[in-house]
Amino acid sequence: MTDPNHPRYFSLVVREKLTNGVRLGITSISGLIAHGRGEAFDYLLGERTHPFAKSAVNAAAAFLLLSEKPVLSLNGNAAALSSAYFIKIAKILDCPLEVNLYHHSKKRVETIENFLGEKAGRHLLKSSKYEKMVIPGIASRRKITIREGIGKADCVLVPLEDGDRCRAMTAMGKTVIAIDLNPLSRTARSARVTIIDNIVRCMPQLALKIAEMKKFPRSRLEKISKNYDNRLVIKQALKAMCYHKNNE
Amino acid sequence: MTDPNHPRYFSLVVREKLTNGVRLGITSISGLIAHGRGEAFDYLLGERTHPFAKSAVNAAAAFLLLSEKPVLSLNGNAAALSSAYFIKIAKILDCPLEVNLYHHSKKRVETIENFLGEKAGRHLLKSSKYEKMVIPGIASRRKITIREGIGKADCVLVPLEDGDRCRAMTAMGKTVIAIDLNPLSRTARSARVTIIDNIVRCMPQLALKIAEMKKFPRSRLEKISKNYDNRLVIKQALKAMCYHKNNE
Repeated sequence: MTDPNHPRYFSLVVREKLTNGVRLGITSISGLIAHGRGEAFDYLLGERTHPFAKSAVNAAAAFLLLSEKPVLSLNGNAAALSSAYFIKIAKILDCPLEVNLYHHSKKRVETIENFLGEKAGRHLLKSSKYEKMVIPGIASRRKITIREGIGKADCVLVPLEDGDRCRAMTAMGKTVIAIDLNPLSRTARSARVTIIDNIVRCMPQLALKIAEMKKFPRSRLEKISKNYDNRLVIKQALKAMCYHKNNE
Repeated sequence: MTDPNHPRYFSLVVREKLTNGVRLGITSISGLIAHGRGEAFDYLLGERTHPFAKSAVNAAAAFLLLSEKPVLSLNGNAAALSSAYFIKIAKILDCPLEVNLYHHSKKRVETIENFLGEKAGRHLLKSSKYEKMVIPGIASRRKITIREGIGKADCVLVPLEDGDRCRAMTAMGKTVIAIDLNPLSRTARSARVTIIDNIVRCMPQLALKIAEMKKFPRSRLEKISKNYDNRLVIKQALKAMCYHKNNE
């Protein structure tokens, strides 16, 4: 459908995945706008994975491997774009996947759960089968979460997050790892680790890193996690966005 | 529907207008992504109209008032967000409005034309009633335009444009005035005047300016248009985006 010679070909293919997600009932209409916002930041980054994003991926892998109970949170855009890698990481870490949506509806949760399907297997905590709990301090329906999933997690990977939830989970003592292309967002600033990169580029990297670092001794992982400075990463991302622009 | 206390209230209201546009068949699904991209650039601008945008609005008003045959081009997002101001400007300039879509379908063109409705009156060139022509050098269906409209125009206001069309129209000798929040886009760089501002903020300003400057002598308008430097405006926009970020 998309012309491979179009200067924005890669970006158009990703868009098609999302508009297809809308047709399947996975992606919300507002999710498309959120994606567009991410696209702009990615554009300013030159649509490549920068060293600061690689260091965030490293730290994310370390935190996930060190945690007692990591959980991967999925929304509609993440499912449409990167579900295979979420499942892959859940398998490597032997941890649960939970669908958690800003524009929540029971139907959409189930559609996404069915989309993840058998590939996710026992890693997927199906909403209909588990007890819920409410995370305090979140205005949206995102506050409703599975007790055995995000409820009990000590480390949560939250792609394409909203600021409220990131803060609320941090306040509960959870380690939040966010994937967010906007270095100025409330999420980016309040997460312990912010991967400022396109989800379609960083998720394969994260899966690789986790598999590789699984063999690392605990002390080495601890060193990586302790030395990681998220404020510095945000600073570097802002600089990269300006650098790119000023050199055009 | 949207909570007025939400930190992103204004942005959410604009989004609702667009998602409503999707329901009405005016806005395309991809238009939502494009909007999100604009949102991010607006975010970096601090969501306000900067002096460089005001000077572009001034120049745009001068070019439109000086031209023999100005035409206002409308797409789905522009119709959903700012149709009242397009109609207002068409009346002040006594010039035509033409619907021109990237994701073209006869049905969507007609839906937008009906949405503009009687308020647009004789200013709206209805697609079904006019002879078409093709603008060379455009890959998309945007190449098909009305001969009596954009075809013969010497100055075209093109909000939320795509780069191809902007260049092709410029190559035909038309003065292109673009509204584009991305200062690095091909459109922003190839237009004679680029208003780097949110369409919902700059369209009311543009209508006001045109009404005010209509009384200006031709020599004064010529001076404004001649002195306008689009490269400088783009530079200032990039600087503003970085300034905002570095001061966060």
